[in-house]
Amino acid sequence: MWIELCCLLLLCCAGVFGTRQICQSLQPLLISAHLCGKDLCKPKQTPIPEATGVISGCVFLIISFLFIPIQFGNNILNAENFPHNELVELLAALLSICCMLLLGFADDVLNLRWRHKLLLPSVASLPLLVVYYVNFNSTTIIVPLPLREWLGHAVNIGFLYYVYMGMLGVFCTNAINILAGINGLEIGQSLIIGFSILIFNIVELYRETQQTHLFSMYIILPYLATTLGLFQQNWYPAEIFVGDTFCYVSGMTFAVVGILGHFSKTVLLFFIPQIFNFLYSLPQLFHIVPCPRHRMPKYNSSSDKLIASTCKVPKEELGKLGLSIIYVLKSLKLVEYDYREDVITMNNFTLINLVLIYRGPTHEKTLTLTLLYIQILCSVIAFTIRYPLASYFYNTSSVM
Amino acid sequence: MWIELCCLLLLCCAGVFGTRQICQSLQPLLISAHLCGKDLCKPKQTPIPEATGVISGCVFLIISFLFIPIQFGNNILNAENFPHNELVELLAALLSICCMLLLGFADDVLNLRWRHKLLLPSVASLPLLVVYYVNFNSTTIIVPLPLREWLGHAVNIGFLYYVYMGMLGVFCTNAINILAGINGLEIGQSLIIGFSILIFNIVELYRETQQTHLFSMYIILPYLATTLGLFQQNWYPAEIFVGDTFCYVSGMTFAVVGILGHFSKTVLLFFIPQIFNFLYSLPQLFHIVPCPRHRMPKYNSSSDKLIASTCKVPKEELGKLGLSIIYVLKSLKLVEYDYREDVITMNNFTLINLVLIYRGPTHEKTLTLTLLYIQILCSVIAFTIRYPLASYFYNTSSVM
Repeated sequence: MWIELCCLLLLCCAGVFGTRQICQSLQPLLISAHLCGKDLCKPKQTPIPEATGVISGCVFLIISFLFIPIQFGNNILNAENFPHNELVELLAALLSICCMLLLGFADDVLNLRWRHKLLLPSVASLPLLVVYYVNFNSTTIIVPLPLREWLGHAVNIGFLYYVYMGMLGVFCTNAINILAGINGLEIGQSLIIGFSILIFNIVELYRETQQTHLFSMYIILPYLATTLGLFQQNWYPAEIFVGDTFCYVSGMTFAVVGILGHFSKTVLLFFIPQIFNFLYSLPQLFHIVPCPRHRMPKYNSSSDKLIASTCKVPKEELGKLGLSIIYVLKSLKLVEYDYREDVITMNNFTLINLVLIYRGPTHEKTLTLTLLYIQILCSVIAFTIRYPLASYFYNTSSVM
Repeated sequence: MWIELCCLLLLCCAGVFGTRQICQSLQPLLISAHLCGKDLCKPKQTPIPEATGVISGCVFLIISFLFIPIQFGNNILNAENFPHNELVELLAALLSICCMLLLGFADDVLNLRWRHKLLLPSVASLPLLVVYYVNFNSTTIIVPLPLREWLGHAVNIGFLYYVYMGMLGVFCTNAINILAGINGLEIGQSLIIGFSILIFNIVELYRETQQTHLFSMYIILPYLATTLGLFQQNWYPAEIFVGDTFCYVSGMTFAVVGILGHFSKTVLLFFIPQIFNFLYSLPQLFHIVPCPRHRMPKYNSSSDKLIASTCKVPKEELGKLGLSIIYVLKSLKLVEYDYREDVITMNNFTLINLVLIYRGPTHEKTLTLTLLYIQILCSVIAFTIRYPLASYFYNTSSVM
């Protein structure tokens, strides 16, 4: 195990520098391919290369491929007892990630429609589900202690468990993608989630299920390395944008380790800000409340600070459901609105705008840092739920 | 077997129409993403969507993913004896193809450099080689009868066999890519090679190695279906270009079935025109003889016909090696050149130009048809070598 990990760490070091180097040398190609965007939160609107997540993704795949012979080195020499089931898991994981890399890049280049974005991740996770079925097929959920009186010790939800896992991939990819828009946020949150998973794996490494957590580490480590390679250039003031590609690869990577490592619920615990942002965004995503094309904060060039972006809507266009959602959110202090001459002006429903409402006008870098502190805080909460609190609800330690 | 094949054929039918439909609906997206080119062999230079191979490739992957549960249906119900080794092969195959799809699309969008085009296919075939090592690790070559006196019955070339297989992926992808440039040629040759492999699989299906050839069919059938979906729109006069993406996916698909089906030498027999074109192109690819950016034929708008394109070079710039290559080719009647005022004007070294030299000015559609007839003729020759002739060189029928 230690030799393999050392080799992987060496490959990862090469991955950090390789990603950074390739990213710098490919920037002219990206710009000449019209893969560039303007940073709307900056005084100067110079074109910035986009979709650089495809570079970190490719380096990630290359490291993973090069690591396969090392990972299975001992077993390869003893081909008769080769652990085909482990190789199947790894290949299915890499296949799903590779598909998402392709889809993300296609999305950055072509601006795909929503139906493609929902259909393809579901199909991409199909090999993963087949492998899960073949290798584990455990669709039983351990019931929390307080509910056991009614539901029993465990509930087998069968097919629904596969639907849940298929949805997990779709959710993780899109959840990161909609909590984005300011420099360094996509990479920052992904790094925090990734490191949280890594810490969780290390803690669990000396418990019962070593193999599973080792497997997860072998995927998460190269992911973190290649992401770190992009970090510096994407941090404020960003020289590159990571694009949908990066969000898709990140989400699928987390979903994959969660599914094959049997800790998908723990992974979801690390997604608390993303889940909140997703639920908060739902009224706009489903167009119950009008949704402008961009919901990112508004830049005030005189103060060099960001303020919450708003949308305007005549009251009669809102409908009963829309109005009641706004009133509920208002009573929860989750929306700021202004009602004048039958027109409602309210902030866009994203976590970024909500933070801006509470903090007031904020510099972009400070805003990113605030959101990342929230993400770290949520990871701490997640570990608290996972370890001390879980013992109140479950007898066993390996249920998530 | 028959039920699985029927299901696959149904999926393939959906694939043909799905590819055609998606291709039509995505054309505006491709053009607005600047993924379009001009057809230099036409009087009017309207922009034509490029890289549509990414669509057929994605549909191919979707069909393959959907087919996994069907293919392993019987075994899934009996999870204890699940053939992990077969699933490993399939996933490695799809992973390599997916990587090439990504690389091809990246190449179409970014115009990658040559070193990337050679490096990445080698890495992409690594999982395939690991699986080959684990599942077969047969690196022994049966020696043809006339050579057995010196080399013995079989030679184990060990590591070199893996180098050969790694190179096969690189070769197949690039060989199709450089025999291209006129409407319908990339798709046409790929269809003929694909159908040749399919016929070979059907013939071999009732011999010893049924499983291997069934595996190959499960990959080739969806490939052919999705390629057929693009064919009509790419045929003269082309409404779409398939791009590097298509050539890369095609090449890798053929390499994959050749490697995992143990008939890589037979696959190479179907590549006779591509091998000839590759060898013929070598002096220009290695810049021993000057190589212009485009080597495709020249369009004569007054006659609406194509003639061989040429390159000019002062004699002293050629060097001894260049000059001797030209003299050898001249004596083999493989080059047409003109020597005037110390400047040599010769045709570009591609099969397309060579056909034009022999045929004289030719209409584009007739030229494509001629090249496809050559491809079909070569497939017939390949079968002749594989079946009647091979028995003179080998005792056994399952050596290629």
